Amino acid sequence: MSVQRILIAGEWRPAVARSSFRAEHPATGELLPDEFPVSSWADCDAALAAATAAADFLRVAPPEQIAQFLTRFADRLETRKLELVAAAHTETALPKMPRLAEVELPRTTGQLRQAAAAVLEGSWACPTIDTKLNIRSLLSPLGPVLVFGPNNFPFAYNGVAGGDFAAAIAAGNPVIAKGHPGHPLTTRLLAEEALAAVRESGLPPATVQLIYHLAPEDGLRFVADRRLGAVGFTGSRAAGLQLKAAADAVGKPIYVEMSSVNPVVILPGALAERGAKIVEEFAGSCLLAGGQFCVSPGLVILFADGEAAQFIAGVKARLESAPSATLLSSGVARNLAANVELLRQAGAELITGGSLLAGNRFANTLLRVSGATFSSAPDKLQTEAFGNAALVVEVRDAAEAARVLGHLEGNLTGSIYSDTRGGDDALYAQLAPLLRARVGRLLNDKMPTGVAVTAAMNHGGPFPATGHPGFTAVGIPASLRRFAMLQCFDQVRPHRLPRALQDKNPNGRMLRLIDGGWSQRDATAA
Amino acid sequence: MSVQRILIAGEWRPAVARSSFRAEHPATGELLPDEFPVSSWADCDAALAAATAAADFLRVAPPEQIAQFLTRFADRLETRKLELVAAAHTETALPKMPRLAEVELPRTTGQLRQAAAAVLEGSWACPTIDTKLNIRSLLSPLGPVLVFGPNNFPFAYNGVAGGDFAAAIAAGNPVIAKGHPGHPLTTRLLAEEALAAVRESGLPPATVQLIYHLAPEDGLRFVADRRLGAVGFTGSRAAGLQLKAAADAVGKPIYVEMSSVNPVVILPGALAERGAKIVEEFAGSCLLAGGQFCVSPGLVILFADGEAAQFIAGVKARLESAPSATLLSSGVARNLAANVELLRQAGAELITGGSLLAGNRFANTLLRVSGATFSSAPDKLQTEAFGNAALVVEVRDAAEAARVLGHLEGNLTGSIYSDTRGGDDALYAQLAPLLRARVGRLLNDKMPTGVAVTAAMNHGGPFPATGHPGFTAVGIPASLRRFAMLQCFDQVRPHRLPRALQDKNPNGRMLRLIDGGWSQRDATAA
Repeated sequence: MSVQRILIAGEWRPAVARSSFRAEHPATGELLPDEFPVSSWADCDAALAAATAAADFLRVAPPEQIAQFLTRFADRLETRKLELVAAAHTETALPKMPRLAEVELPRTTGQLRQAAAAVLEGSWACPTIDTKLNIRSLLSPLGPVLVFGPNNFPFAYNGVAGGDFAAAIAAGNPVIAKGHPGHPLTTRLLAEEALAAVRESGLPPATVQLIYHLAPEDGLRFVADRRLGAVGFTGSRAAGLQLKAAADAVGKPIYVEMSSVNPVVILPGALAERGAKIVEEFAGSCLLAGGQFCVSPGLVILFADGEAAQFIAGVKARLESAPSATLLSSGVARNLAANVELLRQAGAELITGGSLLAGNRFANTLLRVSGATFSSAPDKLQTEAFGNAALVVEVRDAAEAARVLGHLEGNLTGSIYSDTRGGDDALYAQLAPLLRARVGRLLNDKMPTGVAVTAAMNHGGPFPATGHPGFTAVGIPASLRRFAMLQCFDQVRPHRLPRALQDKNPNGRMLRLIDGGWSQRDATAA
Repeated sequence: MSVQRILIAGEWRPAVARSSFRAEHPATGELLPDEFPVSSWADCDAALAAATAAADFLRVAPPEQIAQFLTRFADRLETRKLELVAAAHTETALPKMPRLAEVELPRTTGQLRQAAAAVLEGSWACPTIDTKLNIRSLLSPLGPVLVFGPNNFPFAYNGVAGGDFAAAIAAGNPVIAKGHPGHPLTTRLLAEEALAAVRESGLPPATVQLIYHLAPEDGLRFVADRRLGAVGFTGSRAAGLQLKAAADAVGKPIYVEMSSVNPVVILPGALAERGAKIVEEFAGSCLLAGGQFCVSPGLVILFADGEAAQFIAGVKARLESAPSATLLSSGVARNLAANVELLRQAGAELITGGSLLAGNRFANTLLRVSGATFSSAPDKLQTEAFGNAALVVEVRDAAEAARVLGHLEGNLTGSIYSDTRGGDDALYAQLAPLLRARVGRLLNDKMPTGVAVTAAMNHGGPFPATGHPGFTAVGIPASLRRFAMLQCFDQVRPHRLPRALQDKNPNGRMLRLIDGGWSQRDATAA
């Protein structure tokens, strides 16, 4: 059987491969039929060379053309929906319905269309004009962006179709996707539609390129290559930290989303008022997609008393009666087992679950630890057990809760449940600032799963959730700003300026900061 | 004589010092009378502890109070102008007039007032509201910011009064300043006024703290401390890279401005049209403040022909007839001599200058190299010779010019001179994109010195000019965004939201992205 081809410079060509791999059927562990290449440096080099030329074109391409590509790509994905959903289901075991067909694919096409709208509108680039000094600036394309897609979103975070992809393209950069080896066929299908959309919109063929797999040393070399503009990465903390170090050393912008336990604080009044409801919400959020979300609630902080015991018993019963999902891969299952074991060794007590099951599943798992024990080994007890497992931290009082929160590393999200009559307000006021400083998104009375793609969303957070707390990976137009450099034009002659900085507002609705005031008007000297 | 005190938690207290130092009189090398401490880690720790508490206050302080501090501080600096100018002149040898009194101090107070205006207006934080989902986000304070000031701007980039200081405070963070050891007295005077303004505006005393000097290992530990929110650094590449690596390793936002040779490309038509004028502009920019600007033009690219020879002869004559300035310190003079030597060893030929003079001066220096030689050792020949020296690169044709530009590292600025009748336009079109991608600010027909503090300014650029090409250190409000984290509030109850995210627009003029449209209106559900 021949090895699948990679997409370089608009051609599906044989890889210069180090070796090859096959994805596994999650439930059975059987290898799937298609064989994919592990690229050598020669492939990376070819992709970079082609992307560099494409970047020169994209830098000056009309926004309409880039928007057309994004929209056509979204349309095409819908046309091929059945095949995409089938491939992703086979490779990830994620349910076809509603997850893949009704949630994730629409989210993916929605992101592409929102990105297209942002390109057309243009305000995302913060065009700024000083007419008196004739100094003008805006955020501009950076050059080729390398996107590493994660295992848990075969569409919506795929390197060749997902959030980082849409943001990088919308900001005017070509993308080189490094697919996730867990779902290479899904990625190939997406890339086929991307290439067709590239052709239909007249963009350079190398606007979208795809490599399936890399040796670690080639990945480290890639992110530090001088021709590369930036990197987007979603995946494990170990890989993220290595890539970040390699990129940081040469000042290459890299956006890594690495890990998060997404603490949920449930205050006593909330538990007394609606404990049963919160049990349902928590267990539901915890088990959603086998707990394989970046924002799965992995850490719950409760105040130890009768209500807490009842909450734990309720969650235990709920987890024990619910089926355990087939996980994304045998690797996910093994890591989950190892991390649950690590939590136990650090002092966590197993309430339920804790064991691998047939069919690449893991028993729905709940662990418990006291606030004092947590504070004695806070690093280990913040280990992310990616999958259907969560740890309850029982604190004795507000002071202990504050200590636990004070130990938290950066997270994507943090939730606080409080009662509706104000009884928890004093406690909220004391604890919320501690949590607020450590999370990108603070929720009230709500579990963190379900990341809405809205301009106000922040899917980001302090280290080690991500590498920089000022940026978000979801939420358009803010996510575009990651893949841009600030370019200032000082006395540059009018005909040489980018359209967005010329006196005339190019579309009549782009918001620009002109002589200190935000406006949609043309720029005319005062 | 007693050692000067440091400013911690609102008190001038004796340092827990490792040792002490005295600044030198630049022209004579004599040590100045005041003795200042080199702090130990105990001082850093005390500053961090106090700043952490101050940060909690500032996070929720009304914008009016922060703006009042910035404005009062600016007023106070003007009141103490004579003493400040005298101290800075003594410590740096920079001219009192016009530089210190009429340019740099007004720039400093102007920055503080612009920052105050940005705080009051509030749009800098990009408040974003989705009324349907009740998700809201904005840029928020990060926590204590450590600012390392450079040697060459005793006021406008001083850690306790300059651009990073103003931006960090305006974004709602306390500042711990690490003064530059070249001008500790100036820094003390500035800090005295800052402290008085802190008191007058009712902010926590630890809003502004000052340490004069640190051992390198304490600096590295400081930037990686968990309590610190971010770091601003302006200085040498060696120190900047070390601090950046230490901060990057723990995901701490650090903004470093390190080095730049600020290439100037003079196209043949411009030289033929107005060569004598460009000689004047170039020599003037080159010698301004002894060439000790981050944006001093250190590299000139010319097309080798008769006009180029005439340009070089003109600059040579101009440099030889102009006085050589007293440099900021003997260290600057020694480094300049060493770097000129390094350029010569890499193949540059000395046209004029090249030697140390009495009174801590260096002969105005011009070097020359061919495009081919430059391209054979591009790294060495991009060595920044900070001070009154510049290197001319003579290229034979457009292809060689393109090769030279292709070798350039990231710079703060790049200039292109072209003729006014369009004769250089084809060459411009070919070369400008190469330069554009490598510089933060592109100029036409203008030397890079003179960084206007305007919203449209970018004082930043690709690595190694800075650590991230998306940010600027000058230009308000953009410079504030460096010292902020993105905070999202998901279903957070209305009374718990920051004022800027509540339905009512807090000042009626803050621009917010509400349900997809930028607006100054109140947020009401559609």
